[in-house]
Parts: sequence; structure tokens; C-alpha cells
Amino acid sequence: SQFSNENLDRLKFGFGKSYQDAIKILTQPNLNVPDFVLFPKKSSEVGYILMQAEKHEITIITFSGGTNVTECFAIEKKKKWVCALNMQKMDKVLEIDPISLTATFECGIYGPELEKNLNNKGLTLGHFPQSFEFSTLGGWIATRSAGQESGKYGKIEDMVLGLKAVTPKFILENKDFPKHASGIDTYPLLVGSEGTLGVIVEAKMKINPIPKAHSWIVALFKDFDSGANALRKMVQSGLHPCISRLSDKTETQMLSLLNNAETKGLKKLMQTLTKSYLKNKGFDKPCMLMLQFVNNGPEDKSTIKHAKKILRKRKAVILPSSMASNWESNRFSLPYIRESLIQHRILLDTFETSTYWRNLIPLYEHIKEDLRKKSDYFDKGGILFCHISHSYKTGASLYFSLIAIQEKGNEMAQWNKIKELVTTAIYEGGGAISHHHGIGKAHKKWYNKQLSNDERLLLKTIKSHLDPEGILNPGKLYDET
Amino acid sequence: SQFSNENLDRLKFGFGKSYQDAIKILTQPNLNVPDFVLFPKKSSEVGYILMQAEKHEITIITFSGGTNVTECFAIEKKKKWVCALNMQKMDKVLEIDPISLTATFECGIYGPELEKNLNNKGLTLGHFPQSFEFSTLGGWIATRSAGQESGKYGKIEDMVLGLKAVTPKFILENKDFPKHASGIDTYPLLVGSEGTLGVIVEAKMKINPIPKAHSWIVALFKDFDSGANALRKMVQSGLHPCISRLSDKTETQMLSLLNNAETKGLKKLMQTLTKSYLKNKGFDKPCMLMLQFVNNGPEDKSTIKHAKKILRKRKAVILPSSMASNWESNRFSLPYIRESLIQHRILLDTFETSTYWRNLIPLYEHIKEDLRKKSDYFDKGGILFCHISHSYKTGASLYFSLIAIQEKGNEMAQWNKIKELVTTAIYEGGGAISHHHGIGKAHKKWYNKQLSNDERLLLKTIKSHLDPEGILNPGKLYDET
Repeated sequence: SQFSNENLDRLKFGFGKSYQDAIKILTQPNLNVPDFVLFPKKSSEVGYILMQAEKHEITIITFSGGTNVTECFAIEKKKKWVCALNMQKMDKVLEIDPISLTATFECGIYGPELEKNLNNKGLTLGHFPQSFEFSTLGGWIATRSAGQESGKYGKIEDMVLGLKAVTPKFILENKDFPKHASGIDTYPLLVGSEGTLGVIVEAKMKINPIPKAHSWIVALFKDFDSGANALRKMVQSGLHPCISRLSDKTETQMLSLLNNAETKGLKKLMQTLTKSYLKNKGFDKPCMLMLQFVNNGPEDKSTIKHAKKILRKRKAVILPSSMASNWESNRFSLPYIRESLIQHRILLDTFETSTYWRNLIPLYEHIKEDLRKKSDYFDKGGILFCHISHSYKTGASLYFSLIAIQEKGNEMAQWNKIKELVTTAIYEGGGAISHHHGIGKAHKKWYNKQLSNDERLLLKTIKSHLDPEGILNPGKLYDET
Repeated sequence: SQFSNENLDRLKFGFGKSYQDAIKILTQPNLNVPDFVLFPKKSSEVGYILMQAEKHEITIITFSGGTNVTECFAIEKKKKWVCALNMQKMDKVLEIDPISLTATFECGIYGPELEKNLNNKGLTLGHFPQSFEFSTLGGWIATRSAGQESGKYGKIEDMVLGLKAVTPKFILENKDFPKHASGIDTYPLLVGSEGTLGVIVEAKMKINPIPKAHSWIVALFKDFDSGANALRKMVQSGLHPCISRLSDKTETQMLSLLNNAETKGLKKLMQTLTKSYLKNKGFDKPCMLMLQFVNNGPEDKSTIKHAKKILRKRKAVILPSSMASNWESNRFSLPYIRESLIQHRILLDTFETSTYWRNLIPLYEHIKEDLRKKSDYFDKGGILFCHISHSYKTGASLYFSLIAIQEKGNEMAQWNKIKELVTTAIYEGGGAISHHHGIGKAHKKWYNKQLSNDERLLLKTIKSHLDPEGILNPGKLYDET
């Protein structure tokens, strides 16, 4: 394995991409970073590193893309040394089977490289998180990532057929089948384990033919509730839009501001006319729904027609689908502007959850209401907006964005207060602590509450078996005591 | 809990429905049956029973529908006593949520009762194994059951949102969400655990609206290979037939014999004419594909049209869809005729596997070839036929039927020899040891081979934690030593 103890590497591979990571780096004089970084090239090297780490009291924090936003790389408990185990050299494509639509990769492979290899054969994994360009397959699996097209392809855990993971004592590798009734699967334990149980070195994934074309539907609803209801009906009817994204009133306004900024002349005039038409219809503060469908041929056209029928029946106004192109061209761009905004003293953060359809609007209202009642966030000009980002037959995820003015000299405390408030609201409102960001250090407190004592004891037993010395990413997910 | 030590109950709740179970009951003078049967009414009673069982050295074999065909109820290792824990009194519907399409049941509920409760609200679980009338939700989950409509609704494990399981020391119950990124799921460990880790007492399931109507497509292919190829293309195109069933040449002949037996007059004449037409086209020994699609409206009609196009492109001859009605009306009837055939000295058994598409035809040929080369099964007039019973994007299952003359006085040895041969052929040919029957005692030998040592150690650790005294269905799945 390559070795580095350069300060820049220790810094680069010691932090994720959360708001609090950025604030720490910008404001804290003494940063807690790994002592060194190792770059294994094959799984036997990972095994050797873990064995040596046990012997020499080295804490191992597995790092690949480093786009985590829940402080998963934070150094919480420390043995003698801390090593960032950087997986990016393990990025081989091991097998692509276009007949069975499966592919096996080493897990340090980045999104674009993985897709390029599949695209060359007319195939795709279909996993496009916002972090796509900077994140890896192993990271996706270890944190239960969700891509923007999860409506068609599922979350990452739905795509896994088999895993190979290395622990200090064992190599766990399941015999994989399309489906089976051969006993107990253990590989799901690695999914969402965030580096605490083992290092995921290889994964066999379900893949898909690349769609020939896509079509967008853009629609407006009078309110979030009626939009959510239409979206639910659509998904429950068995339609599978790749992307389904319903913005609340505030987010819809933000998006239309962004759109307007770029529009001139006739287009601008048309938009103004459309707006006054909508206002007359009672759509003065509408909610925008964007749906992306595969459009390979006549059968998909029929699906899209059916989707529009479902929307119209629920009083949607269908807009020109070109409205979606602005979003589409910027779908991976937020990571680029985040850090510069933060440096310009803007608090910018996102949080997310999921819940069953029955609880979706109540949870949404509960979170907004708690922030309003229990803080001065809105009084101080803070903005909160939200969209439904992923829809399933049984429920959906809510993705919130926060934009506020940083309190100079008080950045971390300001953020901590908001984070505490909204995560508690999510937890108490019955939402998942996270739908796709993960737990890490940032959400541990609430995951601790969610876990029953008997579940914790089972997890501890599994942890002690796989990592008896506790060298793997200690202090994350839940408290072991 | 109700208690019984009546001989009839001990017999009834001590055996499954496999060929070897039937032979044992018919031929063995001294049957090894449970000492008594308990019928708990709620999960606290299950907890109490397991606690007492630990104390008084009682082996617990959980039994509900009793349709298992892998000797899952066989008494392998025995403490002082053996208790059959019959779950059928725990059959309450706890919650149905038609908005979120979820439902929670106690796990002793039988298929028809579960469906009746959902159907009353326009809903369905969509799980219809051949054992449907006689099997329970808990049994389905504990053995990874697959229903005939798995193409649309998935296998049982795809429908589970949450489980409550009771072990001698713990109650494992996960907080459930539509999807989440909140750490490690432990409930998947119970799926396929076949009574060895705990008693599954409650399950929260994904449910579905009942389709308004279904339509069948029946098609003939020149051979199994081209039929499998067309089926693969269809499923990989994103079409989801509820049922997809491709019979090989022998099974197609068997089915057409059954059909002919009931046909008279004009219909008979038409069939004869069709047959000679097909023969001219090179379809003298065709393979029949039956597909069932939901047909709720125009969008489904378009799907069905698309499906036919895919089939025609691959040289299928489309038959009148009425051909499928005979199969449909008998879809749950095999369990009724099995035992009487066995009593009439017919060896009748089925075995099944799954594999990736690339390996499907090679595995099919390998199994037939091994039976031909390594036994006198065919020489003695034995018949083997097969169909693809469940299709997924990455692969499919093969379901074989065996019909032969029983060797009087040698029934078990005759069966053992065949079972050994075909299961070894499956294992060596790269197939799953089971796609939906499970492991139990019958398939343990091969599951033992499939499990790596490191997987076994992890499973043992989990078992020792949840069932330290080893009272739960000992000697099943894999050897712990």
C-alpha cells in the first residue's frame, strides 16, 4: 500500500463535506486529523492492514470519496494511531455480464468511472446521487445512498447482489443468486454499517440497459398536500418515474427566481402571462412537480400519457417540460457552490428524512412548526424549503434546505442548535433519522434512541465478533455502552 | 397457551408435506414426533414458553401451516422434550393502512384469511405460493417463500418492512420506514432463518391495490432456449408480468395432454389443425410460455401489446389466451392430488433452483444430463419436466417435477438417491440450493458446502447470542460444528 503522512493528505482524507466539516476547517485552530493515510491496492492488502492495525493499536477510518455529510470520518475514540484507509486505488471493474445484467466492481471506484465502463456496453447502474462525481460504490453501500433516479432503479441497497468485506479476522463473501431460499443472508449487515464492521472491498450489482431517451413532465399544484397526493397515486398505480421531485411553495418560488434570472424577451413575457393566468386559477403560490420518465418507445409514451391523466385528475396544471432542463443541467452542481457560499458567510445545509405516506404532510408541518416555535430561525431571516426527493409505494422522503446568515464567531453553536432542533423534530414526528445521508457522528444521538436495547445487544455481539479490538471507525452509529 | 399431547396432534404437527414425509408416515413403524404441542395466543406467551423451554430442556420446533417440503420439522437433536410450537392461534390483523399500502399481521395467519381481510378493502398482499391455502405468513418469511405472482409483487422477503421476533432472551423489533439510511437492519437475519433464531410473531408488509383485471398471453417457442431468451428480454425491458411460466418440451406435452383430455368436438378439431400447422413450422415439440399481466386500462393494454411484440420478434407463435385458464383454475390444486398419487405408489416430487440468465440453460441441461448419466431414472421410465417459474432481471428459477414408479419396500432409498443426485447437480452447476423451498434438513448438506467458514462463524455467533441453549429447531440449515 502507498503511505502518506503529508499534512495536506491528512486534512483531505480526514473530513467529509458537511456544513460542520467546512466550519471546523475554517474556524478551528487545532484540527483533529488522521496520523497517516494508506492506499491499499487489493483486498489482501486491506486484510494485512487490519491485522497490523489490531496489533499496533491503530484506529481505521475507511475513506473513499469523502462526500459524507454526517461526520462519519470524525475521530471520536482513538487508539495509539489513527489511519485513514483510502480505498480509491481499488477501482477495478471485475466483471460485466450484459446477459444477466450484473456487474462486479472493486468498491473504491468513483461514480463517473463506473458509469463510463457500463455505458460503453450500453448499460448503467442508474445510481446518481448529488455527490455522484466525487463518491464511490463502497461509500454508497456503507451509507445506504440514494440516487436521483431511485424511483426506477431503487436505492443502492436494492441493487446489491453480493458483497466481499474484509474484517480484522475474517473475509465475508456471500454466494450470490438472483433470488434464493438458501438460509440467512449476512451481507445486509454490511449495508449501512458505515465502516464499523468491515471494509467493503467488492460488490456485485444489478445493472440496467441505458434508456434511449427520457421525457419530463412538469406540473403545478395549488399546494404541497395535493401534489403529494397525486404523486402517491401515481407511484401506487405502478408507474415508475425515474425522478420524482415535488417542491413546496418556498422551494418552487426559489426555483422560479433562478429560472427568471436567465430569461429575457419573449420567454420572459410568456412567463409573466402564465403567472397571471395561474394566479387567477388560485395558483398564486404553487408547488412544482417534476417527473422524469424513460421514453424508449410507444409503450412508454402510453405510460407518460397515463401519468398526465393521473395528474390532471388531481387538478395539476401541466407546464412545458422544458422547465425541467434548468434543474437537469445543474443536477450535480450544488457541491460546487456550497463551499464558496459558506466562505461568503452563508449558512447552507440540508437535512432529510422519510416516512410513510400517511405521515408525510404531518411530518413536514411538524418540522416547520417546531423550527418556527422553538427558535428565532425565521425571525432572523432564515429560509427553509423542502421537496419530496424519492417516492416509493409506501412512502417518500422529505429533503429540506436551510439558508441563513452565519453568526460570526458563533458558527458551530448556531448550526448545532438548528441541527438539534430539526433532527429532534424528525425523530419525534416519526420520520427516519435519515433517508440517505446516514448516521455517522451527527445523527448518532437519535439513532441511539431509536435502537431498542435488544437490537443494540445484537449489533454489539456482531461488532465484537467481527472487530473484537474495536479498531473500525469507533464511536459512530450508536453508543456501544 | 392451549396444550395437547394427543397422538393425532403430535403426528399432525410433527411433519411437513414433502415426499419423504409422506413415505415416512406410510412406511415407518416408529415415527419420531414431538412430545406435545403448544398453541400460544400472544407474543408474551411465546416469550414465556421459550423461557420455560430453556429452563426445562425443551426443544422448540415452530410450526404453523406445516406445508414445508424440506423436513424443517424433523426432530434432529433432542433435549429432554420436544415441543411443536403451533402459531395458528396468533392470526390477528393488527393494522391495514390503505393510504401507505402497508399492513401488519400476527404471523400465524393463513393465506386465505390474510387475503380476505385485505380484499375487503380493495387490497392484496399478492403472495400466492402453491401452498397458499395451507400456509401462513410466518412460515413464508421464515423460509423465503415465493408466490406465483412474484414477477409483479416480489418474493416474500421483498415485501417485509418490519418484523417482531421473540427469542429465549430478547424481543427483536425494528423501527420500520419505507426506506432509510439509519444504520444496520437486523431483521433480515430472521428472513430464511427457519425457526433457528427466533419465533417471528408479527410482520409489517407492503401491500397493493387489487388489479381490476388480468390478461394472459400464451405463446409457443421452438425450444426452451429461445423461449427463455424471449422471457429474459421481456423482463429486462422493464415489463412485469405477474406470472411468467415457460415449460420445457416435456412439460408442454404433459400440459397439452391434460388439456386434450377435457376437449371435445369442434375445439378438439381446431386443436388438431393447429398442431399440424405448428408442426409444419418446425414446432413439433414446442415449449409453452404463459404470461399473466395486470390489465387495468389503456396503459396496461399498451404494455401487453409491447410484450407480444417482443415475443413475435423472437419467433413465438401466440395462442388463444384461453389456453391458460386450465392452469389458472388448478393453480392451488397440486397439494390435493399429491398424497393420493403417493399412496397409489407413484413417486412424485419437485425440486427447484435459481441462477443468473447466463447460466440458466447450461444449468438446466447439466441437471438433466447428470440424471441421465448417473442413474437409471429414465431407463426405468421416470419422467422429468421443468418450467421457469419466476423471472427476474438478473435471472430466473427452474422448477423440476419428477414422476416415477415407486420401488416397493425401497421407497426412501430410491428417493434419497435421486435427491442426492439432483441437488448435487444443482450445487455443482452453480444454482441456488433452493429458490423458494428452503433448506431445512433435506438441503443442509449442500448449504453446509456453500457457506464459507467465516460466514458460518458469524451465523454461529448470532445463534449463540439469540439462542444460547440451542433450543430453537436444532440441526437445521447448517452444521454448527
